[in-house]
Amino acid sequence: MASSLLTRQLAISLQQNLRLAAPGSRYVSKTATKTVSEFEYDAPSMKTAVPGPNNIQLCLSLGLQNVGAVHFFCNYEESRGNYLVDVDGNRMLDVYTQISSIPIGYNHPALIKVMTNPNNVSAFVNRPALGILPPENFPDKLFESLLSIAPSGMSRVQTMACGSCSNENAFKSMFIWYRNKERGYASPSEQEVGTCMINQSPGCPDLSILSFMGAFHGRTMGCLAATHSKAIHKLDIPSFDWPIAPFPKLQYPLEEFVRENAQEEARCLEEVEDLIVKWRQKGRPVAGIVIEPIQAEGGDNHASPDFFSKLRNIARKHGCAFHVDEVQTGGGTTGKFWAHEHWGLDDPADVVSFSKKLLTGGYYHRDELQPDKPYRIFNTWMGDPSKNLFLLEVLNVIRRENLLEEVTRSGKALLQGLYALQTQYPHILSRARGQGTFCAIDACNDATRDSIMLKARNKGLFMGSCGEKTIRFRPALVFKEYHVHQLLNILNDILAEHK
Amino acid sequence: MASSLLTRQLAISLQQNLRLAAPGSRYVSKTATKTVSEFEYDAPSMKTAVPGPNNIQLCLSLGLQNVGAVHFFCNYEESRGNYLVDVDGNRMLDVYTQISSIPIGYNHPALIKVMTNPNNVSAFVNRPALGILPPENFPDKLFESLLSIAPSGMSRVQTMACGSCSNENAFKSMFIWYRNKERGYASPSEQEVGTCMINQSPGCPDLSILSFMGAFHGRTMGCLAATHSKAIHKLDIPSFDWPIAPFPKLQYPLEEFVRENAQEEARCLEEVEDLIVKWRQKGRPVAGIVIEPIQAEGGDNHASPDFFSKLRNIARKHGCAFHVDEVQTGGGTTGKFWAHEHWGLDDPADVVSFSKKLLTGGYYHRDELQPDKPYRIFNTWMGDPSKNLFLLEVLNVIRRENLLEEVTRSGKALLQGLYALQTQYPHILSRARGQGTFCAIDACNDATRDSIMLKARNKGLFMGSCGEKTIRFRPALVFKEYHVHQLLNILNDILAEHK
Repeated sequence: MASSLLTRQLAISLQQNLRLAAPGSRYVSKTATKTVSEFEYDAPSMKTAVPGPNNIQLCLSLGLQNVGAVHFFCNYEESRGNYLVDVDGNRMLDVYTQISSIPIGYNHPALIKVMTNPNNVSAFVNRPALGILPPENFPDKLFESLLSIAPSGMSRVQTMACGSCSNENAFKSMFIWYRNKERGYASPSEQEVGTCMINQSPGCPDLSILSFMGAFHGRTMGCLAATHSKAIHKLDIPSFDWPIAPFPKLQYPLEEFVRENAQEEARCLEEVEDLIVKWRQKGRPVAGIVIEPIQAEGGDNHASPDFFSKLRNIARKHGCAFHVDEVQTGGGTTGKFWAHEHWGLDDPADVVSFSKKLLTGGYYHRDELQPDKPYRIFNTWMGDPSKNLFLLEVLNVIRRENLLEEVTRSGKALLQGLYALQTQYPHILSRARGQGTFCAIDACNDATRDSIMLKARNKGLFMGSCGEKTIRFRPALVFKEYHVHQLLNILNDILAEHK
Repeated sequence: MASSLLTRQLAISLQQNLRLAAPGSRYVSKTATKTVSEFEYDAPSMKTAVPGPNNIQLCLSLGLQNVGAVHFFCNYEESRGNYLVDVDGNRMLDVYTQISSIPIGYNHPALIKVMTNPNNVSAFVNRPALGILPPENFPDKLFESLLSIAPSGMSRVQTMACGSCSNENAFKSMFIWYRNKERGYASPSEQEVGTCMINQSPGCPDLSILSFMGAFHGRTMGCLAATHSKAIHKLDIPSFDWPIAPFPKLQYPLEEFVRENAQEEARCLEEVEDLIVKWRQKGRPVAGIVIEPIQAEGGDNHASPDFFSKLRNIARKHGCAFHVDEVQTGGGTTGKFWAHEHWGLDDPADVVSFSKKLLTGGYYHRDELQPDKPYRIFNTWMGDPSKNLFLLEVLNVIRRENLLEEVTRSGKALLQGLYALQTQYPHILSRARGQGTFCAIDACNDATRDSIMLKARNKGLFMGSCGEKTIRFRPALVFKEYHVHQLLNILNDILAEHK
């Protein structure tokens, strides 16, 4: 039971025997059992195929509900750290972590302490309307948590309940900023006030957000108009006539294709500028550009710091706001807290949105993006202070346990392992890529990808997919090198059988 | 401290001396002190004007954040039942309840028990991706909580994180349903699959949602296109060309204007049908009609059961889905669990959305509205099982303490009191109206309304506003008749001074 978890050993030995495998050999981590902390399991353990009998029974019992996407039912009480336990007692190494939203593993003792601290009870039981009646400790908690990790150039943050709401409101703040600029910060005209009530221009202006093919920014109707990763997300839903630029299709490893990739990025940037001009000419000016530092849902597509730096300049040049969507990349998984830190820019964005590993949604923004009046960016809950309490403790753990360094180290081992696998199985795997533990590799086709994933699950490794034929790795920040070795061992076994 | 709250007296004496005030006299509830349960306070208690010095200090400390809408900072630990305590130690009778989102008052002992039950820890600490990896107890909890209160004709529910996401996804499910019907449930064409990726028709079809003037359905871009309550919500945000029908402007009390109101409702219904035909002709067919049972944010506008029954038939006749938005009206505040139950229909709607007092967002729907494929209605979290745990306990309390009967009784006393006040102060107040405790009254103008609300706050009564000059009452379900008397006494004192 969750409440009986033992306190974790905080001092984890970081000295490990790193033995990079020669092709065909198994990875061996001699120190693995020593570094497993008390609260975590030491390895996967499978009792049935997944889904097993208990799972099938539960799926039936959900009856009429929307269950088509259910993989399996979980026993979260018994899950620990990197290991997810299902209702048939199968224990899997989880490198998908609830679609990349579990920051420091399951049932982390530090989070359980937050829950069982009597001083925190009220924050869970009385959810406030944060925008009008914040709790006494809200300023302190905001400064200690979200504002302590604010991206460069940003001293303002607005919390929201989820990733989609964060992006919707980030879009809104860009539209408001753009129109205020256009009208010279004067009051809106009577005509604007009147027409907005009936969805018409000029009150509801024909502004647009420029997004990229392959992007995923959420599924509410504003976000969805900027999302272009899979047809199933968008089919049958009305949308906006907004410009869509090509996202660079790079060759990997990036270091080996510097010239080719630079050309591809230049082509895409040129298209961005053309689209901005074209949409202005057709009366739908681009108020903002939105982009992920790594396109996740769309297939783990990378671009260089130079690309993002130039894109940021294009936004500035054309008077568009620049919105970096870090919903999936944020929170430490790339080895820095924000993926955009890898670009090395002092002024990386006008807006940075987040959710998932940060447990609360929201977005940071530069001062100018603050709406000129209250109630322009508003809703009932405006986030959830109980999630801020958890986030604060997650940040403490990240700092105390040096998890960003850990992610960098584990990520390096993971990527090297993936390189070795694709060298060994070139007819099955290709395009290994990653930053920190935010890694991916392509299978030769979607059927092979899906087959590898199912076999891996039955051997105790739970992975996610993205794009057309990509496996994505999204472990928690407590994913250590010996977990990497477990992962590679299982993959190696499957691929060896697959030959 | 919250954790030290005493267990509440469950058997509350319901025998009260009801003395309806003669004009000018004070309401007196002789038994008030006897029925105050141990865990609640017995009356407001004010130490400073609001906002007091601690409040002003905290507002300054938030510095650059979006604080324009902050009324005051709260001490939620010290708040109890119907009484909200601020950081200056002021204790107010709260009839706004965090924009109508606190179901059974502050720090209810039953909710504290949920928090402190070790079996529940895991649900708070490990937030799952509900759509793919639900917890073991999810089916049980769903049946015990949300499905136990499903509206007539609905056996399916989809949880979401907030009201806006609920309505966005309800809209999407109506669009998907409508297009599947149009294409005869065949697979989408290649052209549809291709065009949807770039926001174009036919993949992203020109469908619409019919909404009503004065409506509020949320502030994300899809919801906002159906919202028409205040310009500040909509100004500068691009929108959709969707039809907007007039909502009946009724005269109150409803019983006295039956004929006039029926005529007004007939006029609006005629306009609805005209708009459906017109939008079909211009190539933007109405896939769904969305409406609140009582327009809340728009000014507490009522319509008759006959109006809703006829509107439901119009939707059926024209092949549009009928979506009842119960985000504010749901959860018991009208004296029935759902406000649409007052219509007496077996088949009241195709979709019913909820949030606020239900603590989790979501929507019920009829079987046909289930998307044909997984991942069409989907996001990372798909709700939050920890909120379901609280909801389950709220439902237990509602049943155990007969709170719907209580609401009906308190609501009757409140409305009678408001009638008496408007009779006594006809130059200040008019149009008292309500269902259960979901009541409202208009001031002669917005300045007077705002002045009454500020004076009331300084005397320990915290109310909300809506529409142009309306005061709205949104107490919790534990609002008893002696709270009504406290409220009326304070209002009476203010109005007497105002004369």
